[in-house]
Amino acid sequence: MSPDRTAIEKAGHRIAGDIRRTPVLHLPQWGVLKLEMLQLSGSFKPRGAFNRMRAAGGLGEAGVIAASGGNHGAAVAAAAQSLGVPAEIFVPEIAAEAKRERIRAYGARLVVGGATYDEAREASEIRAAQTGALMVHAYDQAEVLAGQGTVALEWEEQAPELTHLLIAVGGGGLLGGIAAWHAASGVTLVAVEPEGCPGLHAALAAGRPVPAPVGGLAADSLGARQVGALMFPLIATLHAQGRLATALVPDGAIRAAQQALWREARLVAEPGGAASLAALLSGAWVPPEGARVGVLICGANTDPGVVG
Amino acid sequence: MSPDRTAIEKAGHRIAGDIRRTPVLHLPQWGVLKLEMLQLSGSFKPRGAFNRMRAAGGLGEAGVIAASGGNHGAAVAAAAQSLGVPAEIFVPEIAAEAKRERIRAYGARLVVGGATYDEAREASEIRAAQTGALMVHAYDQAEVLAGQGTVALEWEEQAPELTHLLIAVGGGGLLGGIAAWHAASGVTLVAVEPEGCPGLHAALAAGRPVPAPVGGLAADSLGARQVGALMFPLIATLHAQGRLATALVPDGAIRAAQQALWREARLVAEPGGAASLAALLSGAWVPPEGARVGVLICGANTDPGVVG
Repeated sequence: MSPDRTAIEKAGHRIAGDIRRTPVLHLPQWGVLKLEMLQLSGSFKPRGAFNRMRAAGGLGEAGVIAASGGNHGAAVAAAAQSLGVPAEIFVPEIAAEAKRERIRAYGARLVVGGATYDEAREASEIRAAQTGALMVHAYDQAEVLAGQGTVALEWEEQAPELTHLLIAVGGGGLLGGIAAWHAASGVTLVAVEPEGCPGLHAALAAGRPVPAPVGGLAADSLGARQVGALMFPLIATLHAQGRLATALVPDGAIRAAQQALWREARLVAEPGGAASLAALLSGAWVPPEGARVGVLICGANTDPGVVG
Repeated sequence: MSPDRTAIEKAGHRIAGDIRRTPVLHLPQWGVLKLEMLQLSGSFKPRGAFNRMRAAGGLGEAGVIAASGGNHGAAVAAAAQSLGVPAEIFVPEIAAEAKRERIRAYGARLVVGGATYDEAREASEIRAAQTGALMVHAYDQAEVLAGQGTVALEWEEQAPELTHLLIAVGGGGLLGGIAAWHAASGVTLVAVEPEGCPGLHAALAAGRPVPAPVGGLAADSLGARQVGALMFPLIATLHAQGRLATALVPDGAIRAAQQALWREARLVAEPGGAASLAALLSGAWVPPEGARVGVLICGANTDPGVVG
């Protein structure tokens, strides 16, 4: 089940002292950018991580555990450091050394948990059962969805005039949280996936989350093997009602959007963070007449040299 | 003479449709960052350029003229493009090709006006007398100061609680405009210069603007040979009253601040844009007990690869 507005409001109060209220930037040529890549740890992920951890209450000596070599792992490590509890982060062997280093820099214990993300996740679950650590899922937990939904709450306060919001999709935690906030509003969501990671497209075609390919430029942040079960029913309903559109963008459009963000606004986004803008700039999604467009830039954990 | 609050408010109304209202970011560890490097053309400079151009009224076919191979040149070119008038930008031979290309990309005519900035400026003045183009000075014009002062107006609306504002100084247009806004407020200004470009320190020591060395990492944006005559009397007065502090930062502290901005907040600043933060992080300026600190990040026209 998706959280409701009340759960998201509660999450917002719960994590208000932990996270950054990220700013928006109005650009006449594109719309209202929500600069969520300026969030602690460089992506939106701490919202869900803090909400999961604070909602669980007294975290014992076992602390928290997560499986992710990317933004989620860094966010859980950062949140644990901030709350003063230990964190174990399980990463697959393929995780880049730069990302491992970032997780360690937040004080977490890093464990290489297998060849793939799924193996790392399984290893983390076995370990959590042994230690009693709180598992923080990358996207498919109610408190995580509610935490990510606080982006939409904040953005609505900052730019209530928006009619269409462009959101990148990996596992769907961010989209699911935002959709939960806007379930009964007049806002239309545009769910953007890279062509290389079409998990939501596959799920909407199949009528349920199904495994999908993972590849391309944004795979390290949007490369979930399948979208979350909790968020899918609401997304499918909104899609059927015509209140959620989808778009697929090629890697070339993502890179072009990264470069455009730098050229026009001196902003850096990682590929997954620029995918939403890529849909707009490439014409993969075309705003209807009169639309007031919001674009969520959700991460910047990348080499800044690639955008210049 | 410095502009007064009324002149700055008028400038704010005049350029409201031209410039970006740049966001602020609250960071508990540092203070309230004003993200002015997200401004059109990548620095604060369009505020003054648009105000000068709009205040002048009907710009003829001769358009506008400026001398600068850096942020001011790009800003005048961008403003002229936006207003649909021709621009000639005179640059010294030492201007980097990347900066020339940016000026051309905004549709301006680029003229190499001599070996040094002073030669380029002299050439631009001769040309302006011939063509009747409106000269837009990089810092020493009343409308330019009033335009730059709109940063302070906006920032005060966004974060009225601030008691100390850290501002980088080159020619002093930005500092002068901000000081004009805060001339009779309770806010203390901290004027930060790189050790390699100590024009304000030299002027305060001499009691008037005097030539000073120009060098180091931030010379391309803060390297004015001497600070402006218009802003100096107010700055000297505030300094004598203890309402304006000064700080000098070495290049190493500037580079460290650039890297800290990227690490902690995924923001890119050029050396001149990070100098203000460098004063805080290096301890060159130490906030008094109870200070609520604002840090102006004023430009990002640099290779983003250097910050990662």
